[in-house]
Amino acid sequence: MKAGNKTTGARLRIVLKPGVAIGPGKADILAGIRETGSIAAAGRRMGMSYKRAWTLVEAMNTFFDEPMVETSRGGNARGGASLTPTGEKVLDSYRHMESLTNKAIGKEMTKLRTALPNISNRK
Amino acid sequence: MKAGNKTTGARLRIVLKPGVAIGPGKADILAGIRETGSIAAAGRRMGMSYKRAWTLVEAMNTFFDEPMVETSRGGNARGGASLTPTGEKVLDSYRHMESLTNKAIGKEMTKLRTALPNISNRK
Repeated sequence: MKAGNKTTGARLRIVLKPGVAIGPGKADILAGIRETGSIAAAGRRMGMSYKRAWTLVEAMNTFFDEPMVETSRGGNARGGASLTPTGEKVLDSYRHMESLTNKAIGKEMTKLRTALPNISNRK
Repeated sequence: MKAGNKTTGARLRIVLKPGVAIGPGKADILAGIRETGSIAAAGRRMGMSYKRAWTLVEAMNTFFDEPMVETSRGGNARGGASLTPTGEKVLDSYRHMESLTNKAIGKEMTKLRTALPNISNRK
């Protein structure tokens, strides 16, 4: 099961150009970094390995001419991470689009659930 | 690069219950079966192996108490496939939600593209 399939509802992926996309996983990592100041902590609360979290961040940092996440090794031993203005913009915009989407399709989602046969217990 | 990331814009995944989701790939397979009457042909036009197309169809057929795709071996040697009323409902509803989403987030997408630094040529 994909990580993003654990709760019901809509999942949005925004493709900005071929190969450059932001979806629920990258958005959650950005939000985690904003809230915890750490890539490791952001990954941990998603049940993700440090390596996987780093790989996502490294991918995001090649999307634009400016990085989305910056890391610093000063201050304390394990360093820290924060969003750049570009990272903030992308995350805020993604959350806004998620909310617009859920509002737009809410009625149709309810209609579809009602119209469908029972969801099988085999899943 | 994920298959769904080849063209720009929004990709929608609808999670009906944990583990039961429909996204662009499954929707395209359903549409292909509706149009070609064949799982193999539907997969081929997506550049997907027959095995992969069958795996997606088999997964979809366990979602509900009724299948979404039915196959028949009568009539001609290679048999054929078609959508059940449940398959038709899910596909139509998914396409409708896609269209509602694109309409809802269009302005924000344009705003985001304008606000971002250049998309890197490294991707």
